[in-house]
Amino acid sequence: MSKFWSEAITNLQPYVPGEQPKTTNITKLNTNENPYPPSPKVLETLEHFPKEKLRLYPDPDGSVLKQALSDHFELPQDHIFVGNGSDEVLAHAFMAFFRQPKPLLMPSMTYSFYDVYCNLYDITAEHIPLSDDFRINLNEYHQDNGGIIFANPNAPTGIAVGLDEIETLLKRNTETLVLVDEAYVDFGAESACTLVKRYPNLLVVQTLSKSRSLAGMRVGFALGHPDLIAGLDRVKNSFNSYPLDMLALASATAAIEDTAYFAQTVQQIMNDRDWTTEQLEMLDFDVLPSSTNFVFARHKTASGADLMSYLRSKNILVRHFTKPGIENHLRITIGTRDEMQALITALKERPHS
Amino acid sequence: MSKFWSEAITNLQPYVPGEQPKTTNITKLNTNENPYPPSPKVLETLEHFPKEKLRLYPDPDGSVLKQALSDHFELPQDHIFVGNGSDEVLAHAFMAFFRQPKPLLMPSMTYSFYDVYCNLYDITAEHIPLSDDFRINLNEYHQDNGGIIFANPNAPTGIAVGLDEIETLLKRNTETLVLVDEAYVDFGAESACTLVKRYPNLLVVQTLSKSRSLAGMRVGFALGHPDLIAGLDRVKNSFNSYPLDMLALASATAAIEDTAYFAQTVQQIMNDRDWTTEQLEMLDFDVLPSSTNFVFARHKTASGADLMSYLRSKNILVRHFTKPGIENHLRITIGTRDEMQALITALKERPHS
Repeated sequence: MSKFWSEAITNLQPYVPGEQPKTTNITKLNTNENPYPPSPKVLETLEHFPKEKLRLYPDPDGSVLKQALSDHFELPQDHIFVGNGSDEVLAHAFMAFFRQPKPLLMPSMTYSFYDVYCNLYDITAEHIPLSDDFRINLNEYHQDNGGIIFANPNAPTGIAVGLDEIETLLKRNTETLVLVDEAYVDFGAESACTLVKRYPNLLVVQTLSKSRSLAGMRVGFALGHPDLIAGLDRVKNSFNSYPLDMLALASATAAIEDTAYFAQTVQQIMNDRDWTTEQLEMLDFDVLPSSTNFVFARHKTASGADLMSYLRSKNILVRHFTKPGIENHLRITIGTRDEMQALITALKERPHS
Repeated sequence: MSKFWSEAITNLQPYVPGEQPKTTNITKLNTNENPYPPSPKVLETLEHFPKEKLRLYPDPDGSVLKQALSDHFELPQDHIFVGNGSDEVLAHAFMAFFRQPKPLLMPSMTYSFYDVYCNLYDITAEHIPLSDDFRINLNEYHQDNGGIIFANPNAPTGIAVGLDEIETLLKRNTETLVLVDEAYVDFGAESACTLVKRYPNLLVVQTLSKSRSLAGMRVGFALGHPDLIAGLDRVKNSFNSYPLDMLALASATAAIEDTAYFAQTVQQIMNDRDWTTEQLEMLDFDVLPSSTNFVFARHKTASGADLMSYLRSKNILVRHFTKPGIENHLRITIGTRDEMQALITALKERPHS
């Protein structure tokens, strides 16, 4: 608190990201990072980038990356917006579309940054409860609103809704924007990007931090009708003309282009997720059906806080939320098979109280 | 315009950055980039960076860069904020400090992004005219306000105010924030960073885009009292937890550490600026006294628009503003001596009408 602060910022409730430990020798299963390095083509691109050019400003429009995304998603460039991680893209979308007289609808349990943005931009949120089995029921979003946002698959549950349900929502909810945050979509859910050309009320947001192994480079993007992209551009160009640096643009472009490496690493993670789920179930965990690179699991008897502390004592980090209703769940990122084996071994060795 | 837009964004007036041409063979003197590549230590750091680590999120606090800045400016880390270019740092500062009931004071002619931020965050600006010789007179800022911002040296004039004048302002204006934007300070002006420890009402913002040859990597920072840094952190952590990617952090750190290369390249640019000023004066230009890596100059008879078009026909880009009062000025970046020679030669060859 300071007399120099604007009044509004005293009420902000900033987001708290998962821990980034500075020591090595930690099995890090707490922030849903990809266990595999970026594509060899990314490494090669960075190797050969003419680094003396870094004295110049980057292309403010990020055209080279937009072209790669345009080819990949078969959408014209004017349907594409790029930003400094999907968090920046989401922040601009809240500013551009959700500051409305009516409340923004979102799941009661979802990516917790959405509430932070509402706070930042003075947006009223209405939280729609999940079902008892932690599912989003889009039928319950058929009410007066200033916009709708949900993650698909949802976080931290990992559960996806089907494309048919999203299309039904888009047909019903034509007067306000529906934002589908697809940070984890590549690990087994269906992307709504195929609906973008038909529904001007749909904005799809994705990131290169998970399935493309590029969390360290901060690149995200949105796909939508050109009018929506123009809205995002107005905010971006009133905030920071050049959000993506030259190496972020170059590495993201190479990552999008290497579809073979992408398919192979994503498949490996899905296989290891299924293996991990089976193993956890044998150890008396209830595991929600995940379409992501993490599992959300609750032990039948042990508390979430105890399990997290125990795993930390074994140098394994997992994410635990204190929110009522999920205080006994752990969100466990799918790492390499060896890392998941280490997790299972540690859990097997846990002394029973 | 779209029915999905928030009402406020229909009124935004986005910033228009200088052109980034995609062709080569252009002498680019329009966006105040440094003509010299980043420090060899930056190139080496990028060469040896363990790129497989890019799968992980970067340090959200940017501690390695803060430590380098802490050593360089002899300020504790809690006096330092880092962001995705000084534009992002400025945007967060407007949000954190300048949304006040009273108007923000700024020069009538300065970095035009300030008005864009006011528009974005619904801040009322009061523009204080420059003197007839294009100087900022800080005595005129002694009035009721919700904050004060100016660039020092100012843009696009290139003229600096002295540290004694800034200190007088800080002593008078103790109840609201004074933000000094020092994007160009290293080319011959005095930085207010030495006042940061004594004045809790001072925030100094700098960039690595100009004097550190890193425009392509998008890194800026702010220096101020820990309460001010805490205010910026609240906004940053409500917007994007990880604004700086791993390679931006690594390259900026190396650039700050290489003080010898910095001193040498800055001196070369100042020498060439003085040479260019003399040459322009011999060609009937009035040139304002610059403490930056550009000159702001007006020909005694030719119009600014004509001169810009003529130079463009010779593949030389300079910046021209249509704002009344400066419509006959050109802002010319100081490039290499060869580039400045090419400019002077082109101007000498200009057919007289």
